[in-house]
Amino acid sequence: MFTLPNYTTPDFSEPFFINAPSVRTMPAPMDGVVPENFYATTIFPEYFKIHNTWQLMRESRMDCVVVIKDDHPAAVEFRNVKKGDAVVVGRHEDGGNGVYVDHFAFNKKQNETDNFSFRTSNSRETAYSRDYDRLYELLEFERDHGYLLWVLGPAVTFDQDSRNAMTKLIENGYVDALFAGNALATHDLESHFFNTALGQDIYSKENKSMGHYHHIETINRARSCETLENLVETYKIEDGIVSACIKNKIPMVLAGSIRDDGPLPSVYADVYQAQDALRVHTRKATTVICLATQLHTIATGNMTPSYQVVDGIIRPVYFYTVDISEFVVNKLKDRGSLSSRSFITNIQDFVVNLQRRLATPKDGHFNK
Amino acid sequence: MFTLPNYTTPDFSEPFFINAPSVRTMPAPMDGVVPENFYATTIFPEYFKIHNTWQLMRESRMDCVVVIKDDHPAAVEFRNVKKGDAVVVGRHEDGGNGVYVDHFAFNKKQNETDNFSFRTSNSRETAYSRDYDRLYELLEFERDHGYLLWVLGPAVTFDQDSRNAMTKLIENGYVDALFAGNALATHDLESHFFNTALGQDIYSKENKSMGHYHHIETINRARSCETLENLVETYKIEDGIVSACIKNKIPMVLAGSIRDDGPLPSVYADVYQAQDALRVHTRKATTVICLATQLHTIATGNMTPSYQVVDGIIRPVYFYTVDISEFVVNKLKDRGSLSSRSFITNIQDFVVNLQRRLATPKDGHFNK
Amino acid sequence: MFTLPNYTTPDFSEPFFINAPSVRTMPAPMDGVVPENFYATTIFPEYFKIHNTWQLMRESRMDCVVVIKDDHPAAVEFRNVKKGDAVVVGRHEDGGNGVYVDHFAFNKKQNETDNFSFRTSNSRETAYSRDYDRLYELLEFERDHGYLLWVLGPAVTFDQDSRNAMTKLIENGYVDALFAGNALATHDLESHFFNTALGQDIYSKENKSMGHYHHIETINRARSCETLENLVETYKIEDGIVSACIKNKIPMVLAGSIRDDGPLPSVYADVYQAQDALRVHTRKATTVICLATQLHTIATGNMTPSYQVVDGIIRPVYFYTVDISEFVVNKLKDRGSLSSRSFITNIQDFVVNLQRRLATPKDGHFNK
Amino acid sequence: MFTLPNYTTPDFSEPFFINAPSVRTMPAPMDGVVPENFYATTIFPEYFKIHNTWQLMRESRMDCVVVIKDDHPAAVEFRNVKKGDAVVVGRHEDGGNGVYVDHFAFNKKQNETDNFSFRTSNSRETAYSRDYDRLYELLEFERDHGYLLWVLGPAVTFDQDSRNAMTKLIENGYVDALFAGNALATHDLESHFFNTALGQDIYSKENKSMGHYHHIETINRARSCETLENLVETYKIEDGIVSACIKNKIPMVLAGSIRDDGPLPSVYADVYQAQDALRVHTRKATTVICLATQLHTIATGNMTPSYQVVDGIIRPVYFYTVDISEFVVNKLKDRGSLSSRSFITNIQDFVVNLQRRLATPKDGHFNK
Repeated sequence: MFTLPNYTTPDFSEPFFINAPSVRTMPAPMDGVVPENFYATTIFPEYFKIHNTWQLMRESRMDCVVVIKDDHPAAVEFRNVKKGDAVVVGRHEDGGNGVYVDHFAFNKKQNETDNFSFRTSNSRETAYSRDYDRLYELLEFERDHGYLLWVLGPAVTFDQDSRNAMTKLIENGYVDALFAGNALATHDLESHFFNTALGQDIYSKENKSMGHYHHIETINRARSCETLENLVETYKIEDGIVSACIKNKIPMVLAGSIRDDGPLPSVYADVYQAQDALRVHTRKATTVICLATQLHTIATGNMTPSYQVVDGIIRPVYFYTVDISEFVVNKLKDRGSLSSRSFITNIQDFVVNLQRRLATPKDGHFNK
Repeated sequence: MFTLPNYTTPDFSEPFFINAPSVRTMPAPMDGVVPENFYATTIFPEYFKIHNTWQLMRESRMDCVVVIKDDHPAAVEFRNVKKGDAVVVGRHEDGGNGVYVDHFAFNKKQNETDNFSFRTSNSRETAYSRDYDRLYELLEFERDHGYLLWVLGPAVTFDQDSRNAMTKLIENGYVDALFAGNALATHDLESHFFNTALGQDIYSKENKSMGHYHHIETINRARSCETLENLVETYKIEDGIVSACIKNKIPMVLAGSIRDDGPLPSVYADVYQAQDALRVHTRKATTVICLATQLHTIATGNMTPSYQVVDGIIRPVYFYTVDISEFVVNKLKDRGSLSSRSFITNIQDFVVNLQRRLATPKDGHFNK
Repeated sequence: MFTLPNYTTPDFSEPFFINAPSVRTMPAPMDGVVPENFYATTIFPEYFKIHNTWQLMRESRMDCVVVIKDDHPAAVEFRNVKKGDAVVVGRHEDGGNGVYVDHFAFNKKQNETDNFSFRTSNSRETAYSRDYDRLYELLEFERDHGYLLWVLGPAVTFDQDSRNAMTKLIENGYVDALFAGNALATHDLESHFFNTALGQDIYSKENKSMGHYHHIETINRARSCETLENLVETYKIEDGIVSACIKNKIPMVLAGSIRDDGPLPSVYADVYQAQDALRVHTRKATTVICLATQLHTIATGNMTPSYQVVDGIIRPVYFYTVDISEFVVNKLKDRGSLSSRSFITNIQDFVVNLQRRLATPKDGHFNK
Repeated sequence: MFTLPNYTTPDFSEPFFINAPSVRTMPAPMDGVVPENFYATTIFPEYFKIHNTWQLMRESRMDCVVVIKDDHPAAVEFRNVKKGDAVVVGRHEDGGNGVYVDHFAFNKKQNETDNFSFRTSNSRETAYSRDYDRLYELLEFERDHGYLLWVLGPAVTFDQDSRNAMTKLIENGYVDALFAGNALATHDLESHFFNTALGQDIYSKENKSMGHYHHIETINRARSCETLENLVETYKIEDGIVSACIKNKIPMVLAGSIRDDGPLPSVYADVYQAQDALRVHTRKATTVICLATQLHTIATGNMTPSYQVVDGIIRPVYFYTVDISEFVVNKLKDRGSLSSRSFITNIQDFVVNLQRRLATPKDGHFNK
């Protein structure tokens, strides 16, 4: 059974914290521009002393400035700052200037007594059995108590079994919001109309005659319906990811990209509006699972905090990256998303495994 | 010395072509929506019979519809179609319905007499000496006679030598237009201010103290200057890619993405406007070189034709992809950009090699 | 239900074949050296005309010479040729000089009417559902009618679930012979003694104190027992791959490599003796499954024929490569092992999937 | 100008070291088997107290046992231990039982004051300019004062420019010993006879008719000459790596593998004899450069110490891995070869860069 780790709030009754000054702010000189010595957010829990009270920032994200509004701190993107906003300045994070970053949150003690171990990095050769077991338990917990954000690359819908598995995960309550691009939705709908993705059968892998028309025909039909909801209703689409989201009222944020044909209706042309739309969900997300999309994974990682406050409890956010390439996973680590966990595998196998296991009576390990 | 291959126009005086009907069109039913049986463009030279004359489409791109306007065919993206536009319909490409796709353009005869060869795919183990030699000659030719579009991933500016080499290529006339994202420009400018990229020194690789502020400080300075031109002038930036483009009046198209911090001024927030801005250059490009960016490479590949008409001559467009991952290169192939050539290597080495060789007296091979 | 494809023997009653001369041979000039104009074997069915009879070569492999002995053709490695052996000479394969290579064996007709398809190569984004379904059926067929050779990289035993799954596949009759290196066996035995691989727990991934001693302690124990059979008996080893092979009398060929510590008893120090020992099994293999080992996979591919004669029937040999890297899979293709099929995934997931499915009542698709 | 870092010997006059006992040994119970509680070597400088004197072990390597012979410690592989050898036992490394491992040798102080940096791992996006500059200087130093061991994968000889560059490095004194497999030597010689590697032209990349005969014809010619020296003389081979080694009397160790055709004369069939032959050179190596071969790189890493004693001075051994795959490089790190440095690039570019730069007048940076 999954249980949340405890979070110990720093002891703000210590003299150091009591004697620390409140945060200093300076007004933003113009829309979208901040004072030179601005403070930038991290991925850790951050506290700001405002009118002599240390306040945890809620709904954080990294690489933003902090605007104090109505005596509360808020992480605001540069482009969303308004002239005159009270922007926190100064770069110390140790509490001395009214900003305290809790780098030790949720950290387990590491056994570092040995001078040497062979295997330290995460790779295709890492053992994933325990990660799967933990993830099964986490997902069952989150279905009832959390907010599950999935971030999908188009490959999820390039294979019949993985498309079906993902659809069932949505239908069975394991998805609270979905983030993807034009391609994922297009090829999912193409699969409905033609059983293909980019013209290739998602089961037999046969390249269909005139198959290169399939995705643009799909897009054209959708555009003629003006919304995806109308498309699903008009064509009575009962299968696939888009249909499952619409029928189960799971919000989809579809971000446009310079690669897109079309696009489909409801795809954000403006990427910064797409960020804002996604942040509505990262403000609530307690577990994020990213499958085979470097672009969307890094975007989501940038704006997902490492913690949330749920029912007054400070808890960690779990961030999973699943990709076949170590490079993608390590790049995310290098961007600062320290709390991420990863599976190095083909996401088809991952999502099929997940769905099978969650649909199976709980009698312990499969292989025991 | 580089010479262009000949292109043989199909013999439209043959009875088959003379007897073929003109293209059929139907009006677009609404803005951004086309008739069901639309014809979609390919990457090959395409001819349309209009008023009994076979016309080559100029400034083509794949996966578009063809709109006949003023008796000329034009490749138009779905989203740019206007209600009532005359859209070509029918899907035969053999001339029989007024559309002829010349699949054989520029194709060399392949020696296929053997039943078996060991090595057929392009990989890290492919021999690239001749490709380098050809590219050196091609670039010298294109500097005088063509239009060179470069597509850059941020890694070009993560290393001092490759940043310097790219800068010199711009200064020496080997770049006519540049396409990139917010990150390339941001880290190039960060290198000017801090000698770092994402906080890491681009020569010593030292992670600088507070280095995670560098890119957002850079962005904030740029935003306060309102344009990149002002930034370069205000801070007297004499080094790097952005400065070289501005000083040499090389157009930069910077496309926004959902990963972006900032963004910098002049970055397109709307990705479809970015596509339109890029297509201004792909309509003219005769050689395209893409370095270490899957996203921008595929975007550019989608909208680059395989041929151009220059001074009345039909000539091929050369499309190079340089990436360390076979997957990226093969993915481009699978997207239909058949005419692309690739180097599987680190783009730092590639760009440094290129600049050194082009700056060297022409005494034949380096290694001979 | 799996059924074998038909093989149509060439019609040797045709005048061309009747009029063709018998093969020419020349004696090998010295041990391990063949005549200059030697004929080399391919991966296809090959027929040799000997005393006016066209004979299929059995137990073939590529890149060998053909020695005629007792009026039968045999594929012999260069190093195994003896002075005076009658070596087939001449390089035509079309029957004209008594050698006929059947390039068309088992080939399905390919639909090649379209000029273009988007996706043609095999990658991480290929749909694998059908390949899994076919493989499940094939394995059930082969358990009863074929000879299943598995080629294992050490990563199979780096994870608890995949080690258990592989062990069960052996116990349940899905393995007829196993080929691996010193590392696979060492870490499988290390898992028994310490629950680690290279010192890292195969479930918790904890790096154990003094864990870098684990594999060499394991090796030392095995060497003191002089055989793996004695080791398994002495230490009453009931779990893992090595134990399952020994208890079920499944032959293991363990080939030494220059990376090895130890080695364990029964590991071949001489790689060419290891090749000979492996060829005993490739002469019989009807399906080969290679997991996460470039070295052993290419070695096995080199010496596995594309067909076998079983109970008088000429049938194909199925060769599967499972690896997370497209490069490895494509390299095998480039080496000439044309008939191979591949899964691009993490082999942990692959082997766990396989075992679960084969242990499950057959009620159709999991996901339907 | 390159200078060696200083090594500070531990102060063995401290009471702790003076009071420590001498090492304990136990006799090996049989050939190739050691006592249960054996001590195993690391990659760090190790001191053993013998007759009250602390002695540095020379010519070390990891994962061996230590045999005291004639009052000196020696790192001996398990298989090379003889019954009755005095094997060091006990596992403390802190000096307390007569064994002291100097984990701090050559370590620079790391700046770890910041809580966070974006980029910490080594990848395709790492800046390599400074590494190149250092390597140029190191190679010039080592040519005069060190012992340069190169470890080559076959891809070095798959391209004309890189084959030529490697050849010149040998001719110009930058190679003291070479380690490779059968394939490197075979394809280098194939390039002489046919200008191909595995049948593909190393400049034009054309697949030659009957090209799949090229490597086995090459092998057959070599086998008929009985030695590579005879082959080079008989066929007057003046180009390529094998010829350059033979003419410049650079020792080549060629290790057999289970992938091999042939093999060529002088290839070690027994991999453990190949290890012994290689260790002759790793006992002396001061810089090791490994190009595009996971197998040989790990093998060499296993038996290369992190330090040597040259003219009485304790100096570090520099170990470079050049590979296009982060996985290979990280795997080496995970095997314990902590002191390795890496370039993630195509080795063709690497070796061509190196040769060009070393052949160029020393006027500082190319790009400055």
